[in-house]
Amino acid sequence: MKAIQVENPGELEIVEIEKPKLEGLQDVIVKVKNVGICGSDVHIYHGSNPFTVYPRIIGHEVSGIVEEVGEEVSSVRVGDLVALEPILYCGECYACRKGQPNVCKSLEVFGVHRDGGMSEWLKAEEKNWHKVSDCVSEEATSLIEPLTIGAQATYRGEVREGDTVFIIGAGPTGIACLLLAKEHGAKVIISDFNQTRLDYAASIGADVTIQPKETDVAKEIERLTDGELANVVIDAVGLPQTFQQAVELASIAGTVVTLGFNEQPSAIPSLLLTKKELKVVGSRLQTHQFKGVIEKVEKGKLDPSQIISHRFPMEQVKDAFDLLENKPEEVRKIVLTF
Amino acid sequence: MKAIQVENPGELEIVEIEKPKLEGLQDVIVKVKNVGICGSDVHIYHGSNPFTVYPRIIGHEVSGIVEEVGEEVSSVRVGDLVALEPILYCGECYACRKGQPNVCKSLEVFGVHRDGGMSEWLKAEEKNWHKVSDCVSEEATSLIEPLTIGAQATYRGEVREGDTVFIIGAGPTGIACLLLAKEHGAKVIISDFNQTRLDYAASIGADVTIQPKETDVAKEIERLTDGELANVVIDAVGLPQTFQQAVELASIAGTVVTLGFNEQPSAIPSLLLTKKELKVVGSRLQTHQFKGVIEKVEKGKLDPSQIISHRFPMEQVKDAFDLLENKPEEVRKIVLTF
Repeated sequence: MKAIQVENPGELEIVEIEKPKLEGLQDVIVKVKNVGICGSDVHIYHGSNPFTVYPRIIGHEVSGIVEEVGEEVSSVRVGDLVALEPILYCGECYACRKGQPNVCKSLEVFGVHRDGGMSEWLKAEEKNWHKVSDCVSEEATSLIEPLTIGAQATYRGEVREGDTVFIIGAGPTGIACLLLAKEHGAKVIISDFNQTRLDYAASIGADVTIQPKETDVAKEIERLTDGELANVVIDAVGLPQTFQQAVELASIAGTVVTLGFNEQPSAIPSLLLTKKELKVVGSRLQTHQFKGVIEKVEKGKLDPSQIISHRFPMEQVKDAFDLLENKPEEVRKIVLTF
Repeated sequence: MKAIQVENPGELEIVEIEKPKLEGLQDVIVKVKNVGICGSDVHIYHGSNPFTVYPRIIGHEVSGIVEEVGEEVSSVRVGDLVALEPILYCGECYACRKGQPNVCKSLEVFGVHRDGGMSEWLKAEEKNWHKVSDCVSEEATSLIEPLTIGAQATYRGEVREGDTVFIIGAGPTGIACLLLAKEHGAKVIISDFNQTRLDYAASIGADVTIQPKETDVAKEIERLTDGELANVVIDAVGLPQTFQQAVELASIAGTVVTLGFNEQPSAIPSLLLTKKELKVVGSRLQTHQFKGVIEKVEKGKLDPSQIISHRFPMEQVKDAFDLLENKPEEVRKIVLTF
């Protein structure tokens, strides 16, 4: 079968490998239909992901149709439309015991630590596949995973109805957070230097957009909230200054969520955390978010297709990566078709 | 009646003022018995508390006996031993609605924003007084408030049985956190440059003490936890470097609590928060902690007297402040007797 493999940093190839075979009793083999391209796929391509080993078949935003199941599989059947939950964990370490298997000390992510879903077929155990109703498209199903990232961020940020949520960055992650925050009944303010992204955010429900080139962000947040500031701030950019800004612009008793992986420190005075009694939390991947997101997608409350901007057949993956690299301002989410 | 008043920064006087009279239907007048001296009293004395206006009667760690009650008072009776819950809040702002009245936007603390309890009698509404069983001493009752600070820190830090908790600083706040963390069933490691404080912490239950002058703290925490690091780190010092250290030494899925009011920024990379999916929280004053702490004190599970090192009659308050200023290494908590 064909698979998209990063041979070494900078070398992306379509390779011919063996089709997976059923082995374990919980194994499920899925005919892959769509795979979204994520920032972390790009990082692996660039050699800037510290967890990966080459060569690596990338891709973790995967939909497909169940083709074969092991003897003990009961939650999905042949012919079912499924989404991949791309994490594997030990279930025993401190993080797993605390209900955060997404940061398990032995964490493995499909397409990062082990081969992923940009291949014609993908084998994973039953627990990694979630059945999705046929009323949802295959393409939308592949983008349930990025929405779970937004679901995790709003869960970690404890977003509640009536909250004012400020999202820094209207890229794919910011947009996923926007969709989930609106679904929770929050008022959402979003900022981005890219006007195309900002206009798009407004078109899908952002209550207010801020263009930092034209507007003083801090003053605007203060004005919009009558001085209360934002109850939840989600930093979906991850620069040292955006994380600082997030802590500064959170309201008393507010929550700050960072999805940043920046090694450069931000300047954060403890005064701000104590005086406002803030919670500042990291949000990584997701935990237990698939069922909730799938339910909302099936009921039409969330539409993952809203984050798609481009579609490519898997054979044109290099063109897709070129577009993402050269015109990032035009791209939200590219979906490959298998 | 006599009261201890800071006239202006640096000027502490015993003044003669009028004894309070019952006015409101919920008023309770208490004959003050003991008042603990807190760091914030010292800050007011030094003029380094931004919230206070002079002259100010200080003191918020107060015990006493109910002497008179307004017509509608039902939770305490004349003759009851009581502890003061020294915060007043609006009940309507975002923080109050979210259950964090301790950071109410109109917060007032007795002895800080309004006159406090270092006076022979103190009037406050019924809701600010908690009845304590007579099996507890008057002196211990005055120190329920500092224990609620430890209760708040362990509540914010989500300390659970079996957790390894690392407390930075074995001063009065660190000791309160130690007592509460032990009560939750955690293993507690505590560090302090002051060996007297460290020895004291060991004598009341710290499982491990670390003297940073002799031991590399990071390596020691790593060794003691088999590389897992500390599940909860409480920074009870509040220097820029201790807050950084707290974030660095928290385990995956861990929690960091800061009680610091430092305006100097700490260098915190978002990477650490996201990679470990940390919660980093401020802890200020307390919310809803009095009932729980009083119950534990009454049952003998917590002993507030453990934090006392010195006792002075109120007339000798200047000597008490002198001792605290000149020999901080010898002082844990000074209690004044009225």
